[in-house]
Formats: sequence, structure tokens, C-alpha cells
Amino acid sequence: MTDTREKEIVLTGITTTGTPHLGNYVGAIRPAIEASRDPNVKPFYFLADYHALIKCQEPARIRQSTLEIAATWLALGLDTDNAVFYRQSDVPEITELAWILSCVTAKGLMNRAHAYKAAVQENLDRGEKDPDKGITMGLYCYPILMAADILLFKARKVPVGRDQIQHIEMARDIAARFNHIYGRHFVLPEAVIQEETAVLLGLDGRKMSKSYDNTIPIFAPEKRLRKLIMKIKTNSLPPEAPKDPDTCTLFSIYQAFATKEEVEALRKRYQEGIAWGEMKQLLFEYINAHIKEARTRYEELIQHPERIEQVLRQGGERAREVARPFMREIREAVGIAPLA
Amino acid sequence: MTDTREKEIVLTGITTTGTPHLGNYVGAIRPAIEASRDPNVKPFYFLADYHALIKCQEPARIRQSTLEIAATWLALGLDTDNAVFYRQSDVPEITELAWILSCVTAKGLMNRAHAYKAAVQENLDRGEKDPDKGITMGLYCYPILMAADILLFKARKVPVGRDQIQHIEMARDIAARFNHIYGRHFVLPEAVIQEETAVLLGLDGRKMSKSYDNTIPIFAPEKRLRKLIMKIKTNSLPPEAPKDPDTCTLFSIYQAFATKEEVEALRKRYQEGIAWGEMKQLLFEYINAHIKEARTRYEELIQHPERIEQVLRQGGERAREVARPFMREIREAVGIAPLA
Repeated sequence: MTDTREKEIVLTGITTTGTPHLGNYVGAIRPAIEASRDPNVKPFYFLADYHALIKCQEPARIRQSTLEIAATWLALGLDTDNAVFYRQSDVPEITELAWILSCVTAKGLMNRAHAYKAAVQENLDRGEKDPDKGITMGLYCYPILMAADILLFKARKVPVGRDQIQHIEMARDIAARFNHIYGRHFVLPEAVIQEETAVLLGLDGRKMSKSYDNTIPIFAPEKRLRKLIMKIKTNSLPPEAPKDPDTCTLFSIYQAFATKEEVEALRKRYQEGIAWGEMKQLLFEYINAHIKEARTRYEELIQHPERIEQVLRQGGERAREVARPFMREIREAVGIAPLA
Repeated sequence: MTDTREKEIVLTGITTTGTPHLGNYVGAIRPAIEASRDPNVKPFYFLADYHALIKCQEPARIRQSTLEIAATWLALGLDTDNAVFYRQSDVPEITELAWILSCVTAKGLMNRAHAYKAAVQENLDRGEKDPDKGITMGLYCYPILMAADILLFKARKVPVGRDQIQHIEMARDIAARFNHIYGRHFVLPEAVIQEETAVLLGLDGRKMSKSYDNTIPIFAPEKRLRKLIMKIKTNSLPPEAPKDPDTCTLFSIYQAFATKEEVEALRKRYQEGIAWGEMKQLLFEYINAHIKEARTRYEELIQHPERIEQVLRQGGERAREVARPFMREIREAVGIAPLA
């Protein structure tokens, strides 16, 4: 069999506003890295720093997050020979396309965006006179930028959580409208809904999430990792009492990393009664062993931002090799091509 | 006196949707070309093809208009050694900046834009249920793109008609907001209001304007120029009757081109009585003599779009020499700078 068939393009953006935590690892990073090794798939993974500007006006935080996210993905073994790994802001064709798309996008479509409507509702609930109070044009126009991210690379499948389905539908609508006016140029993208198979719980027992401030950074230094795991909330059952693994934060984290057999073995120990202190030590040792090597690579990368920069630049160049000729086609289609 | 002081930056955009006519020449092109020869001024003149997409979805028309406008300005003697003459779409930094600005622009500000409000009012007057019916995001976001056009080149003075004052105020607001969050980076632009000193009348006696379809293209071929001038509406006064020059379309056009002395002499002839046919012939000959040489250059240029393309590309490169380092500064300010 020759390998001339086209690879499936899969596109994922990572907003650069936080430090990657174990929840990100299990829910997004690990599957994405696995996909990057699939020879049938051509992944486009990008650091969405233009998106980050919508919710974050602290330059140092965006810069630090960009560094940490890139270092994390590389340390965890992203295959950058196959995957195109780039910074959104290194591809100027994205904002160019966003403008062109905005000229065929009905304002009414943006009015219906969930995130915008939720912000308006919050204002109304608060008794604000201006329903748009505090809402920026960045937030309002976000679905167009996202459409440009997707359409520029002709991504057919876009893996998203349920909350993002509407954005993919909007990208489809915009693409269809453009194709209707100017001829078929864009591929209509489809959402591939990712059911959250493994919801990882955080320090306080709620879903691990930056917004709850209950996260465990993937590459917290060993001491800090230990401290954080020791802080995880448990109930007050005595050591010898049988415990329910399925409502236990410690178990949920262990489960996300361990093999089926290991999980079954631990489940038994819960039934027999395991002391929380022992379980925490066990979990720490398990996670620490799991990520130790990658953490060494991560720390090395963080010490050498120039290496990360080089990888991102190469990725940006590869992304532009796709983006540039396609934008020439799009510009030609709308009438802003060279005169000769 | 040394010439080390900074030149005043003056910025003007020309939307590429029509064929330049005598009204454009008198109202905008002639003064801009004169300014391009002023050693105290550094003009940035650009073909606003990204703006054109808002109102025109005919690629051929945008392309043709770009060609004709560029050829017109060059044929009429634009000093491209001093003036930076470029195509908006050749400067990707403009849409990048537009996105960054959108993240600090309140949606409420856009809601107050005259053009948007007028479109909403039209919908309401027509009894539409959706006030945003038929309104695109291009129209809605236009003031942000215009702010990017202006702020990217640190233009202090922006010559505009009264209808554009609000856009300059919005650019100021957006710049001030950015400076407040990220530190002083943008120059706050000021509108220089251009009172229409010479309103040129069109074929039907109303103001010459593309939207009235009553224009005389600057470089209409000689025969067609004659034909159009012969078509200009006049009243039915007999040849010998004294005529009022100040309500006469023919006179208004003559006046825009002739010297003070010539205008006074013609004014006398109006008082004495001049036949419309004679006056039309006189006007045709006058205009034709005035633009003949430039028309030859124009026709030559239209035959050689590659020459125009080269001039525009050089202009685009010069614009980017200013835009690129400034965008590095802006990116650094918001936190999307290189990691090393």
C-alpha cells in the first residue's frame, strides 16, 4: 500500500492563559499527543495567543503560559515531525482571513453566540442598563477568528467539547456563505464531539479546572507535587473503614493514569480499607514516577526558551506553507489579487 | 536649517469600488497630490481594498477599481518618492492590529457608530423584526479596521469629511484605552475637517457622486468626455439671456479647474448671455486640455498593470518598514512576543 492518500487534518487550539494541569493532561494533551503519532492524521495544534487576549490583559501571564504550554507538549513527546505545532500569532493569514470572513458574516449570527448571550444575560441579571456593558469586541467577534483558524487549514474534523459545538456550526455557516458568493473554496468543518471520558477531580473534589483554582500542575516540582496531593480533600472515615473509590478524588486521579489491572487492585484495597495518608503517598509516588522523565525534559526546556522558540517558528513556517497559497486563492476570489 | 525634524504624517484611504471621477479629483485627489509634494508632510495614501469588501462582493469590480484608482493617482503626478502609496491588503500588520484592538474595544462603542445605527434605523423603518437584518460584521467592525489603519502609522492628522469625524474619535478612544492598559504606545489621532470648498455638480445638477450615477470619469476617452459634458442638464434660457453662474453645473465644473481670472471672465460672459451649446464646447475643451497629458499617461499605465503593481508593492514594502517594528512593540506590550 502506498501512502499517497491525504491525511486527515485535525485542528486544536490551546489558549495561552494558564499553567497546564493534570486535568488538561488527561482530557486534552494526552489524546492529542497520541493522535500526533497516528500516521493517518495530520494534526494542526496551535497556541491560541490571539484568543488569550480576549480574557487576559496581563502580558507576563500570556508569555509565561505560552512558554509552559509549549514546553509541556514537547516534554510529553509531541511528534512535531508529523504534527504542525505553531503559535497563532505567527500566522498573519489568520487575521487577514478573519477580516475577509467578517464581510460575509451576518451580525445576527454573532448575536446568537452562547458566550455573548451569557455575558448579556449576566448584565441583565445584574440590572445593568447597557446589556453590552463590559463586553469587548474581541469576545463578540471570537467565533469569526475561530472560523478563520479552522477554515484556513481546511480542517474537516475539529475535536471539541460540547460547549464548542456552536462555534463549529458558525464556522460552517460562514464557510457556506462565502462559498455561495465566491464559489467553492472552503471545506465545511465538522465537530467531533469529545465526551469527557475521564473527568479529573481537583484539590477540592470539584472538576479540576483553572477557574476553580483547584489544579495540580503537571510539572509541579516533586516537593510541590507531594504537598498538593497531600492537600487533596478526603472524607473523615477511619483508616480501616471500607471506602467508595468512585466518589474519591484520589482514586479518580489514579485511575486516569494507571492500567486497568492496577485500578482493579486498588479498588480492592479501597473495599478492604486504606488509610488516606497511605493512599496519598501511593498516588504521589505513582504520578511522580509517571511524569518524572518528562519533568526533567520540561525543566530543561524551560531553561532554554530559545529551543522552544525555534520549534514554534518552524511550526509557524510549516503552517504558512499551507496558509499562504490558500490565502492567495481566497484573495483572488474576492478581488484583491495582484494586478499583474 | 537642517531637515531633521519629523515630517507630519497624513493618512488617507481610498475605497476601491469605483472609477475616479471629476468630483473625486477636485475634492480629494488634487489636494492629496499637492500635499504629496510638500516637504513638511509624509503622506500615507492607501487603496482600501479590505474596506471595499464591506460594500462590494464583485471581485472584478474591486480589481478594476484598484487598477483605475492607482493609475489615476500616478498619472496625475503623485510623488511616490515622498508619499507612501500602498494597497491596504499588502500590509498584514493592519488586520493583526485590528484584532488586538478589538480586544480592548467596548462593544458599546461600536453600537454607537453612525453607519451601523443608520442601517438599524432603516431596518426598523421598514418594519423588520430583526434590527440587524442584512448587516454584516464587516460593516459593524469597520471602525476598528479604520483605527488600525490610522494607529499603525502613528498618523497625528487625518483629513476627513464631516461624516468621518466619529471614526477618528473612535480611533482615539480605542488608542487611549490600549495606552491605559498597556502603556503609551499609540499616538492619539486628530481629525482635520475638510470643509468641501468645491462641491462639484454632476450630470443631473446634484452633487457629483457615484451613488447618484451622475459622474464624469476623470479619464473618460476624449469622445466620451465630450458626450458626457454635452449631456449635462441646463435650464431652458435662450442663448442671449443673462445666466446665473452660481446655480449652473457647467460653471461649477469650470470653476473647479480654472484660474481666478478665467472664472471672472466667464462670469461676465454669463451675465452677457452665453449659449449652452457654446458653454458646453468651451467646458469640454478646457477640461480636455487640462487632463490630456495625464490621460495619455493613464492609458499607458492601464495597458501596463505590471508597472502599477510594482509601484504598489514598493509602497507596501515601505509601509511595512514602518509597520513591522511597531507591531513588534505592540505584540511585546500585549504579551505575544518571541520567547527568546
